[in-house]
Amino acid sequence: MSFDAALLGKFINGEKRACARIISIVENRRKGFEEYLKQLQPRARGAYVIGITGPPGVGKSTLINRLAAELLKDGNSVGVVAVDPSSPFTGGAVLGDRIRMGEISMNSRFYFRSLSSRGNLGGLSEAASDVVRILDAFGKDVIIVETVGTGQNEVDVIESCDTVVVVLMPGTGDDIQAQKAGILEIGNVFAINKSDRDGAERTLRELQTMLHMNPMSEYETRIVMTKSNIGEGISDLKDAILSHRDYLNGTGKMAEKRSARNVNEMTRLIRAKIIGKVESLMDSDREYMKIEGDVRGGRLDPHSASARLLEYIDDKLFVSKSKGERNG
Amino acid sequence: MSFDAALLGKFINGEKRACARIISIVENRRKGFEEYLKQLQPRARGAYVIGITGPPGVGKSTLINRLAAELLKDGNSVGVVAVDPSSPFTGGAVLGDRIRMGEISMNSRFYFRSLSSRGNLGGLSEAASDVVRILDAFGKDVIIVETVGTGQNEVDVIESCDTVVVVLMPGTGDDIQAQKAGILEIGNVFAINKSDRDGAERTLRELQTMLHMNPMSEYETRIVMTKSNIGEGISDLKDAILSHRDYLNGTGKMAEKRSARNVNEMTRLIRAKIIGKVESLMDSDREYMKIEGDVRGGRLDPHSASARLLEYIDDKLFVSKSKGERNG
Repeated sequence: MSFDAALLGKFINGEKRACARIISIVENRRKGFEEYLKQLQPRARGAYVIGITGPPGVGKSTLINRLAAELLKDGNSVGVVAVDPSSPFTGGAVLGDRIRMGEISMNSRFYFRSLSSRGNLGGLSEAASDVVRILDAFGKDVIIVETVGTGQNEVDVIESCDTVVVVLMPGTGDDIQAQKAGILEIGNVFAINKSDRDGAERTLRELQTMLHMNPMSEYETRIVMTKSNIGEGISDLKDAILSHRDYLNGTGKMAEKRSARNVNEMTRLIRAKIIGKVESLMDSDREYMKIEGDVRGGRLDPHSASARLLEYIDDKLFVSKSKGERNG
Repeated sequence: MSFDAALLGKFINGEKRACARIISIVENRRKGFEEYLKQLQPRARGAYVIGITGPPGVGKSTLINRLAAELLKDGNSVGVVAVDPSSPFTGGAVLGDRIRMGEISMNSRFYFRSLSSRGNLGGLSEAASDVVRILDAFGKDVIIVETVGTGQNEVDVIESCDTVVVVLMPGTGDDIQAQKAGILEIGNVFAINKSDRDGAERTLRELQTMLHMNPMSEYETRIVMTKSNIGEGISDLKDAILSHRDYLNGTGKMAEKRSARNVNEMTRLIRAKIIGKVESLMDSDREYMKIEGDVRGGRLDPHSASARLLEYIDDKLFVSKSKGERNG
């Protein structure tokens, strides 16, 4: 089945099940998925996107649950997208999702969706962007994106958010260093969760020192101590996040971020399409297969092979330069 | 400066400094880097590549240090490539590297190199493959590749290894689940390090249960308890690793893995080249810029834009289908 106007109608009507179905269609690149995205585009209202990241075990899920509850209390409509590249279980595990989010999932203004890398034909970053886009059109005021870690995919996901919250917990020695490495630059707000554990003050001081060492930021990053299990510090965390939003809005950076997000997404998509096109044109091409065979057998190194292939593809598929210029 | 035959001569002579310089040239895609790789290709002897992965803080570095020492004792020449996408410091930090590896770095048959994502123009997976390739040609019998985590880049890196060792440590509740999620399928050998900590037996039992639940593997995965700080269990770990190597050799899977590794690398390289070519041809193209502007301004969604761009690029850059077939 391709594009279904009735399904879109139900989505526009605010039916969660229609939203879930459209997300699945887009996620799995089913026939007609592009038409849904096209139809939804004019409905985008510019939801505020919060990215929450940090190593496993720091309590991100509980923190997000509490934060979402706070935002709902303020009258916002809230969506959560959990990106877990390592889990084979999360994708579409609706029951598990509900259990995870607890009573909040009963709130009509709340929507939760988890994504795993399996079953996302377009890759995790694209899937996350698409879901954010769909939830925006679904009328969410705030969308929270949760990721685990530091892989390139996750950095792509998190960099496309408006505000990035890095969650840490008190630790010792190497653990802390490892937790912190590489995430300083992407955090706009830091939460030290499980802050009743030993070493919280030390983690705070170390983090402060490291943040002062970072001359790149013109925005003064805030650090909030939280205990998500009992809900302490959540309202401070919300304030810190919203103050970064105000900063983005006040400086025009919010609009810049959104533009860049759209263009990056387009670039990713067109790149994949170009590769797909060239590879389908080269499919079972004799010369291509010969070169690939030489690489497979270890007779030719991959770099030399790719240089030779580029020349061959250029010759065979692309219009000659002079002709290209004439057309242009 | 481009290709330098004298430098290659020193490399072939076994000079570590020449090896380091060639790695830097390749890593930074300096002029002539492809010629080095081409010249090195016939020198590749098919080193055995061990990938070691696991979350931060489990003691991978110490474990690798000990394992390398064992392998050196057996008469092997050993290389270590540490991939740390989160660290802005590791790349080329030769002094830090030496301190990290301790006295082992004085051994003439040992070579250590760390890679960070900054400064690797070709991306981290390519850089790691290139360094493995160079160390293979440098005469290493065994090459150990260390990565931190579960991002897509790291999975790419680790999947190209012959044997994958997943390092865990005793933990509680959520932490363990999080550590394990998604890495079961990629591990051929598991090490539970810091096994004198509380909960080691429980971690072992849980891991055994989860491995039994995985029907995909025809090779019986081994779990080894280690205490890398005092060197306990390292010789068992080595045996478990080498027994997986024997399995690969005995079943012909080793050759398959290497062929696939070469082809994957070629595919990655040629894809990047094709994208580069198309983007340079489209650079400052008026129609392309107009579509990009519409996406930037939110007037056009990225999916529709990429579909339109593909059509446009197809028209403008590619030879028409009939002509392509005539040439083919």
